[in-house]
Amino acid sequence: MKNKILVIHGPNLNLLGEREKSVYGSASLQEINKKIKALAKELKVEVEILQSNIEGEIVNAIQSAKGKFSAMVINPAGYTHYSVAIRDAIAAVRIPAVEVHLSNIYSREEIRHKSVIAPVAAGQIAGFGVNSYLLGLQAAVGLLKK
Amino acid sequence: MKNKILVIHGPNLNLLGEREKSVYGSASLQEINKKIKALAKELKVEVEILQSNIEGEIVNAIQSAKGKFSAMVINPAGYTHYSVAIRDAIAAVRIPAVEVHLSNIYSREEIRHKSVIAPVAAGQIAGFGVNSYLLGLQAAVGLLKK
Amino acid sequence: MKNKILVIHGPNLNLLGEREKSVYGSASLQEINKKIKALAKELKVEVEILQSNIEGEIVNAIQSAKGKFSAMVINPAGYTHYSVAIRDAIAAVRIPAVEVHLSNIYSREEIRHKSVIAPVAAGQIAGFGVNSYLLGLQAAVGLLKK
Amino acid sequence: MKNKILVIHGPNLNLLGEREKSVYGSASLQEINKKIKALAKELKVEVEILQSNIEGEIVNAIQSAKGKFSAMVINPAGYTHYSVAIRDAIAAVRIPAVEVHLSNIYSREEIRHKSVIAPVAAGQIAGFGVNSYLLGLQAAVGLLKK
Amino acid sequence: MKNKILVIHGPNLNLLGEREKSVYGSASLQEINKKIKALAKELKVEVEILQSNIEGEIVNAIQSAKGKFSAMVINPAGYTHYSVAIRDAIAAVRIPAVEVHLSNIYSREEIRHKSVIAPVAAGQIAGFGVNSYLLGLQAAVGLLKK
Amino acid sequence: MKNKILVIHGPNLNLLGEREKSVYGSASLQEINKKIKALAKELKVEVEILQSNIEGEIVNAIQSAKGKFSAMVINPAGYTHYSVAIRDAIAAVRIPAVEVHLSNIYSREEIRHKSVIAPVAAGQIAGFGVNSYLLGLQAAVGLLKK
Amino acid sequence: MKNKILVIHGPNLNLLGEREKSVYGSASLQEINKKIKALAKELKVEVEILQSNIEGEIVNAIQSAKGKFSAMVINPAGYTHYSVAIRDAIAAVRIPAVEVHLSNIYSREEIRHKSVIAPVAAGQIAGFGVNSYLLGLQAAVGLLKK
Amino acid sequence: MKNKILVIHGPNLNLLGEREKSVYGSASLQEINKKIKALAKELKVEVEILQSNIEGEIVNAIQSAKGKFSAMVINPAGYTHYSVAIRDAIAAVRIPAVEVHLSNIYSREEIRHKSVIAPVAAGQIAGFGVNSYLLGLQAAVGLLKK
Amino acid sequence: MKNKILVIHGPNLNLLGEREKSVYGSASLQEINKKIKALAKELKVEVEILQSNIEGEIVNAIQSAKGKFSAMVINPAGYTHYSVAIRDAIAAVRIPAVEVHLSNIYSREEIRHKSVIAPVAAGQIAGFGVNSYLLGLQAAVGLLKK
Amino acid sequence: MKNKILVIHGPNLNLLGEREKSVYGSASLQEINKKIKALAKELKVEVEILQSNIEGEIVNAIQSAKGKFSAMVINPAGYTHYSVAIRDAIAAVRIPAVEVHLSNIYSREEIRHKSVIAPVAAGQIAGFGVNSYLLGLQAAVGLLKK
Amino acid sequence: MKNKILVIHGPNLNLLGEREKSVYGSASLQEINKKIKALAKELKVEVEILQSNIEGEIVNAIQSAKGKFSAMVINPAGYTHYSVAIRDAIAAVRIPAVEVHLSNIYSREEIRHKSVIAPVAAGQIAGFGVNSYLLGLQAAVGLLKK
Amino acid sequence: MKNKILVIHGPNLNLLGEREKSVYGSASLQEINKKIKALAKELKVEVEILQSNIEGEIVNAIQSAKGKFSAMVINPAGYTHYSVAIRDAIAAVRIPAVEVHLSNIYSREEIRHKSVIAPVAAGQIAGFGVNSYLLGLQAAVGLLKK
Repeated sequence: MKNKILVIHGPNLNLLGEREKSVYGSASLQEINKKIKALAKELKVEVEILQSNIEGEIVNAIQSAKGKFSAMVINPAGYTHYSVAIRDAIAAVRIPAVEVHLSNIYSREEIRHKSVIAPVAAGQIAGFGVNSYLLGLQAAVGLLKK
Repeated sequence: MKNKILVIHGPNLNLLGEREKSVYGSASLQEINKKIKALAKELKVEVEILQSNIEGEIVNAIQSAKGKFSAMVINPAGYTHYSVAIRDAIAAVRIPAVEVHLSNIYSREEIRHKSVIAPVAAGQIAGFGVNSYLLGLQAAVGLLKK
Repeated sequence: MKNKILVIHGPNLNLLGEREKSVYGSASLQEINKKIKALAKELKVEVEILQSNIEGEIVNAIQSAKGKFSAMVINPAGYTHYSVAIRDAIAAVRIPAVEVHLSNIYSREEIRHKSVIAPVAAGQIAGFGVNSYLLGLQAAVGLLKK
Repeated sequence: MKNKILVIHGPNLNLLGEREKSVYGSASLQEINKKIKALAKELKVEVEILQSNIEGEIVNAIQSAKGKFSAMVINPAGYTHYSVAIRDAIAAVRIPAVEVHLSNIYSREEIRHKSVIAPVAAGQIAGFGVNSYLLGLQAAVGLLKK
Repeated sequence: MKNKILVIHGPNLNLLGEREKSVYGSASLQEINKKIKALAKELKVEVEILQSNIEGEIVNAIQSAKGKFSAMVINPAGYTHYSVAIRDAIAAVRIPAVEVHLSNIYSREEIRHKSVIAPVAAGQIAGFGVNSYLLGLQAAVGLLKK
Repeated sequence: MKNKILVIHGPNLNLLGEREKSVYGSASLQEINKKIKALAKELKVEVEILQSNIEGEIVNAIQSAKGKFSAMVINPAGYTHYSVAIRDAIAAVRIPAVEVHLSNIYSREEIRHKSVIAPVAAGQIAGFGVNSYLLGLQAAVGLLKK
Repeated sequence: MKNKILVIHGPNLNLLGEREKSVYGSASLQEINKKIKALAKELKVEVEILQSNIEGEIVNAIQSAKGKFSAMVINPAGYTHYSVAIRDAIAAVRIPAVEVHLSNIYSREEIRHKSVIAPVAAGQIAGFGVNSYLLGLQAAVGLLKK
Repeated sequence: MKNKILVIHGPNLNLLGEREKSVYGSASLQEINKKIKALAKELKVEVEILQSNIEGEIVNAIQSAKGKFSAMVINPAGYTHYSVAIRDAIAAVRIPAVEVHLSNIYSREEIRHKSVIAPVAAGQIAGFGVNSYLLGLQAAVGLLKK
Repeated sequence: MKNKILVIHGPNLNLLGEREKSVYGSASLQEINKKIKALAKELKVEVEILQSNIEGEIVNAIQSAKGKFSAMVINPAGYTHYSVAIRDAIAAVRIPAVEVHLSNIYSREEIRHKSVIAPVAAGQIAGFGVNSYLLGLQAAVGLLKK
Repeated sequence: MKNKILVIHGPNLNLLGEREKSVYGSASLQEINKKIKALAKELKVEVEILQSNIEGEIVNAIQSAKGKFSAMVINPAGYTHYSVAIRDAIAAVRIPAVEVHLSNIYSREEIRHKSVIAPVAAGQIAGFGVNSYLLGLQAAVGLLKK
Repeated sequence: MKNKILVIHGPNLNLLGEREKSVYGSASLQEINKKIKALAKELKVEVEILQSNIEGEIVNAIQSAKGKFSAMVINPAGYTHYSVAIRDAIAAVRIPAVEVHLSNIYSREEIRHKSVIAPVAAGQIAGFGVNSYLLGLQAAVGLLKK
Repeated sequence: MKNKILVIHGPNLNLLGEREKSVYGSASLQEINKKIKALAKELKVEVEILQSNIEGEIVNAIQSAKGKFSAMVINPAGYTHYSVAIRDAIAAVRIPAVEVHLSNIYSREEIRHKSVIAPVAAGQIAGFGVNSYLLGLQAAVGLLKK
C-alpha cells in the first residue's frame, strides 16, 4: 500500500482539450492521465485515476481509499468552492491529499478565490496547467517519505 | 441539430402541483412538459426534456448536449445558488443556455437572490409561472436565429 | 382597458443604435418600438410607449397608468439599481409590471447586479437584446389572462 | 402511516467510529442505528433508516417519503451548510423534519455555524453525540401528537 | 417670515388613500393637507404645501425657501434612502427641517432602514400615520421659538 | 385605564443637566418630568414616570404595565442599541410604545445609529431635546384615539 | 449532587401563555414547570427552577450552581444574542449547560439567528415548544452518565 | 467642434458663496464661471456652461453634447455617489469627461467617499476649490490633443 | 477627594482562581484586592473596591462616584463588548477611567476583540494578569497629577 | 522657501515607459521629469524630484521636507492603498500635498479603488497620464497663493 | 541579558513635539527617551532605544534582539495596522513584546482601531501619552519576573 | 539568460530553523538554499538566491531581474498579504513568478488567507515545507519550456 496514490478529477474535467483552451490548455484528460502514469512509473509508485461529475461519488471514492492508498492528488474543480462533504471525507480518512488546479484560481473570478478544501489538504498547487498534476504527484510522493 | 433544444428541470421540480401551490402554481410537471412540447411543435423545433435531483447527472446531461443540441432551457432550482459545477458545465459546452424560474426569485428569501448560473447564461426569465418556460423556449429559438 | 399595455424606456435608451453596440445591439429605439407595435397588433393588445431620462417623469407616468393600462413593460435602465421612487410607484398602482433588460445585467459590472425594482415586479427578463421587449410583452399579455 | 418515521444520515456518517473520535464519539453507525431502533420500539413507532453520500439521493428519499412517513429525523452533515436542494425538498413534502447533529456545530469552525436547513426544519438538536438522534426521535414523536 | 413653514411631500404621496392602505392609512393627501392647515391656524403659523415626484424639483423648492420660510417639514418618501442631492440642499439653506414618515420605516424592509436625510435634519418623526405630519408641524414651531 | 401612560427613562438619564450639556441640554430630569406632568394635565391623561439604570427592572416595569397603562413613552438610552430583552418585553405586552431620544442619534457615533427597539416601537422621535418627550407624549395620546 | 439539575428561564418567559401565542404556544410558565417536574421525577433527578428578567441575577444563579448542581438547562431568551456575561458564567463554572428555545430561532428575524451562548453550551435544542424543555432535561441527564 | 467644451454644474452648486463657506469657499457660481471663461479664452477653446438640480436634465445635456462638444468638465455634486443614469450617459456619448470636485471628497463623510462616475470618467480632480475647475479645463484640453 | 480611586470588577470576576486558570491565572479576587490595597498604600492613595455581576449596579456605582472619587480602574469583563450603558455612565461622570483586562483580549476569540468602553476610557491595559490592575492603578495615579 | 516644491515618485515608477504601456503611457520617468522641470520654470517655482521603491525612504523624504519645501506633489503608486506610515508623515509635516496618479485608479481593479493617502492630501488628480503631474504642479502652486 | 530591554519607536515618532500636539502631547522623542532611561535606572534594568521609519529595519532590529534582550517595548505607530512582517518577526524571536501607543487608538479614526500586532504582543497599553511608555516599561519588567 | 532563475526569500525567512519549528520545519535557510542549488544543477539551470526583510529592496531586486533572469521563485512571507508594491513590480517586469509558501497558508490564521501576489503570479505552491521550493523550481523550469 505504501506506494499507491489515488488521483481524482472533479466535474467537467472530462471535457479538457475541448473547453476554454485559453484557460485550461489543449491537452485532453487522456493525455494528462498518460503523463501522470509515466511519471508514476519513473517515481516507482502505483496510481489509480478516476473522474466523476457527481459530488457523492467523489465522497465515496475518498472513503474507500482508506487502507488501499497512502496519498491522494485531487482536483475538485467546481466543487472546490462549496463542497463541505468532500472536505469532510478528506478529513475523515486521514490520507494526505494534495489539492491541484490547472489554472491559477486566484486570478480568475471572485467566486473561485476561496477553497473549502484547502484547510484540510496537505498543500495546494495551482496555475501550471498539466504540470500542476505532475508537481502534485511529486509532492504526494514527498509526503510518503515522512 | 440546428433545431434541437434541451430542457432541464432541476431538483424537486418533479413535485410540482403538489408543492407550495401559492408559490409555484398548480400545474404538474407533466402538464408543463405538454405545454412545452406543444409550443415546440408550433415553433418547429424539437425538444428533449429531463428532470433530475442529482447535481452530477445534470452536469452529465449538459456535457452530452454538445453536438446534439443547439440551445438549452434550464431551471436549476435549488442548485441555482451554489452549483459552480453546473455553471462550469454550461460555460464548457458553449451552447447558449436560457435560465428560467417559475417564481420571482428576487422577491423571496435572501438565500435565493443570488444566481451563480446567471453570469454564464445567455439571459434569465423569472416570475411568470409555467409561462417562464414558454418564454424561455421562445428566447432560445430567438438565439438560434442569430 | 383590459388590453392596454404601457411600455416605458428609462434613461439613455433614446441613444440605442449609437451607443456601445457590442453590448446593446445595433437597433435604434425607433426600430424597437416598431417591432413592439407589430407584435402588439398580432397579440391584439394596444400599446403606448414612452421614453424619459427624468426619474420623476417615469414616476408620474406609472402613477397615471392607473385605470388606463392593465400591465406595464419597463426597462428602468440606470435607475434599476437605486430608484426606490420608481419601485414605490410600481407597488402603489398595483398594475403588474414586467422588468426587461437588453443585456444580461448579471454578467456585467458589480454595480449592475442588484435591481431594487425586481422585488415588486411580476417577473424579470434579461439578456435577449430587442427580444427581451418582445418576450416581455408576451409575458405581460400572459399576466392579463389570469 | 401515523407512526412511521424516516431517519436520514448524510455524507461521511458511514465512517462513524473510525473518524475523528474526539469530535464524533466512538460509536459506529451500526451501533447508533441499533439504539434508534430500540427506542422506536419502546415509543411504539416504526423507523426506516438510510445513509447516502449523494446529495440528490437524499433529495429523492425525502420526496418519496410523502404518504409513507409522518416525520423525519435528518442529519444532513456536510450538506447542512449549502444544500438548498435538500432544503427545498423538505419544504416541498411538508413532512415535519427534525435536524440533528452529533457535535455542537456552533463551537466548531466558522464554516459550520450556518445551517441552510434550519429555517425549514421543525427544530434542531445539536451537540449530544448519539443522544442527539434519540432526542430527535422523541421530538419527532412529540410532533406527531400535535 | 418668522412664522412661515414649508411642507414638502415627496414622490408617490399624491397616491395616498389609494395605495397600500394597511401601511399608509386611508386618508388622502387632500385630507392630510386640510389637517395640516387647520393645525397651522391653531398654532398661528402660515404653511405652504407642495408635492413633487421629481427629485430636482424638490431640491429647487428647498433652495428657494431661503428667506421665505423659517422651517420645513419634509417627507422625502422614496428619496429618503439615497438622495444626497436633497440632503445637500437642506444643509445648504440652513433652514431647520423636520423629517417625517407616515410609517415606521425601521420595521419595514431592510432597504428602508437607512435615511441619508436624517443626519442633516433637526429631528425625525416616524410611524404615527397622519399624526406624524401634525407632530412634525408642532416640532417645527417648537424650533422657531429657540 | 384608557388614559394612563407610562414614561420610562433608561440608564444615565438621572444625570441630565450635569452631563454633556452640549449634547443633551441643561434641563435636569426633575425639570423634564415637571414639563411632562404639566402637558399630561393639559392633555387630560395620567402619567407615571420611572427611571432605572438596570435593564431587567425596565423589563419588569414594561411587563407589569399590562392592564394598567394604555401606552408607553420610553427613552431606552444606552440600551437602545442591544437590549433584545427590552425589545421582547415591548412586543410581548402589546402596549404601544413611543421611542424617544433627546439627541439625533443618527448624527452621532456609528454605535448609536442602530436601534433594536425601533422595529417594535410604534414610532420614534429624536433630536428635539426636552421637546422629544413632550412630542412623544402627544404621539402616545394620538395613538390612544385610534 | 450527582442528580440535581438547575433550570433557568430568561427574560419575558414569565409572560408565556399570554404573549404571541402563535410563536410560543399557549402553555403558561407554571404549566411548563409542572411538566418539567413530572419528567424529573420519572427520570429520578431533582430539579430547581428559576426565572429572572435581570441579566446579572442569571449570572449569579449560574455561579452559585457550582457544587450544588451537576447540569443546567437554560433558555436565555432575549439574552441569547448578546450576553457575553452569561456566556462567561457558563464557561467559568464548568457545569454542562443545555441551551433550549421554544421556537426555532433560525426561522425568525435575522437578529435571532446568532447565539453567543451556543459555543460554550454542551448542545442546543430549539423549535419543539414545551417539548424543548423536556428533551433538554433528558439531554442533561444523558450528559450526567458520561 | 474640435475646441468646444461643455461644463456641467450639478445640484446645489447654484448656491455657492452662500453655502457652508468653510467647505466650498466664498466664490459664487457667477465668479467661477467668469474664471472658467477667461481661462478658456486664454487656452483658445470655446466653453458652454450649464447648471441643473435635476438629474434627468443633466442626462439630457450630456446626450445632446454628442457632435457638438469634444470634451466635458462635470461636477456631479450630490449625484456623484449614486447616479448610474449620469454614468451611463457619459459612457454612451463617448465624449471624454473630466470629473471635478471643489472639496476633497475623501476627507469628508463616509457617504461621499465613493464616486459611481469615476470609473467612466477620463480622470478626476478634487480638493482645490475653484482651481479644480480650472485644472479640469486644462486636463480636458490636454485630452483633446491626444 | 484628590486621592480616592474606585476599582470596579465586572461580572464573573468573583470566580477568579477557580475559573480557567490557564487564561486568568490562579490568584483569587481576594488576593488581587490585597495587592491593589498594598500598592495604593505605597502610592499614597485611597481605594474602594467593588464587584458586581449586574450591569445596572455598575452603572449606579459609576454615577455615584461623582464628587467622591477622582479616578476609576474598571475591568468590565463580559460587559466590555456590548454595554453602551456603562460606556455612557463613564462618559457622563467625566471621571477618568482606566480600562483593565487580565488577559490580552486581542489574542482571544473574535467576540472579545472589540471594546465599546475603550473609546471613552482614558486608556487601556490588557494582558498582564494581576499586574494589569497594578499598572492600571499607577496609570490612574499618573492621570491625577495632570 | 516660498517657491520650492518636492515631487515624489513612489515604487516601480522608475520602470515607466517599459511597463504596461497601455495603462501608463510610453513616456519614461526621465521624460516626465523634464516636462515637470520645464513647467516649474515657466511657473517660476523650484522643484526637487525623487523616486524610491522603499516605503521608509519616502517617509524620511517627507519628514525632511519640513522647512525646505512649501508644497509636495506625490504619486504614492503601490503604497497608495495601505501605507499608513506615508499618510502619517504627510499629516505630521503639515506641508500641503497633492496626490497624483497616471491612470484613473477608479476604473482599475477593486484593490486600487481606496487611497489611504487621500484623506490627508489637499486634493487628488488622477487619470491624465503625464498631464496628471503637470496639473498637480499647477494645483500645488495654486495652494501656495492662499 | 536578564535585565536588558529593547525600546522601538516606529515611523514618524522622531517628529514628536512638533506634530499634532493636541493628539500626541508636546514632549519630544528626546525627552521621552530621557524619562524612559531614568525609569529604567530606577527599575534596575538596561534599555536600548531605537527609532526607524523603515519597516524592514524594524524587522531586522527585532530579529537581532534574540539572545541580547529579554523583553521589548514597541510603538509600531503607522505600521500597527498592516505590518504582518513586524508581527511575524515578534512571533519568531519569542521575546515578550509590550505594544504601546501614546493616544487611545480606539477613540480615533476607524483605520486605527485594528492592530495586527496586538495578537502576538504580550499586552497593550494605549492612551496615556508619555506615560504609556513608562507603564509599558514597568509591564515589561513585570513580565521578566515570571 | 534562458536558464537563469531568481529565488527570493522574504522577511523573517533568515530565521528558519530557529523559529516556530512545528510550523516551518527545522531546516535552516542555508540548508534550503543548498537543496535548491543541487536541484538547479540537476535541472541544468542557474539560480541566484537573495533574502531581504525590506519591502523596497525586494521591489528593487525584481526590477533589476529584467533581462537577467527568465523566471522567479518567490516566497513573499509576511508581505504576501498587503504588498501592492511587490505585486506591481512582478506585473511590471513581466518575468513569470512562482509564488511559494512553506506552510499551507489556508489552514492558518484568517490574516494569512489572502495573497495580493497570487493574481499576478504564474501559479502558487503552498504547504510542502522545503519541498515547496523544490517543486517551485521545477514549476519555473516547466514555464521556461513554453
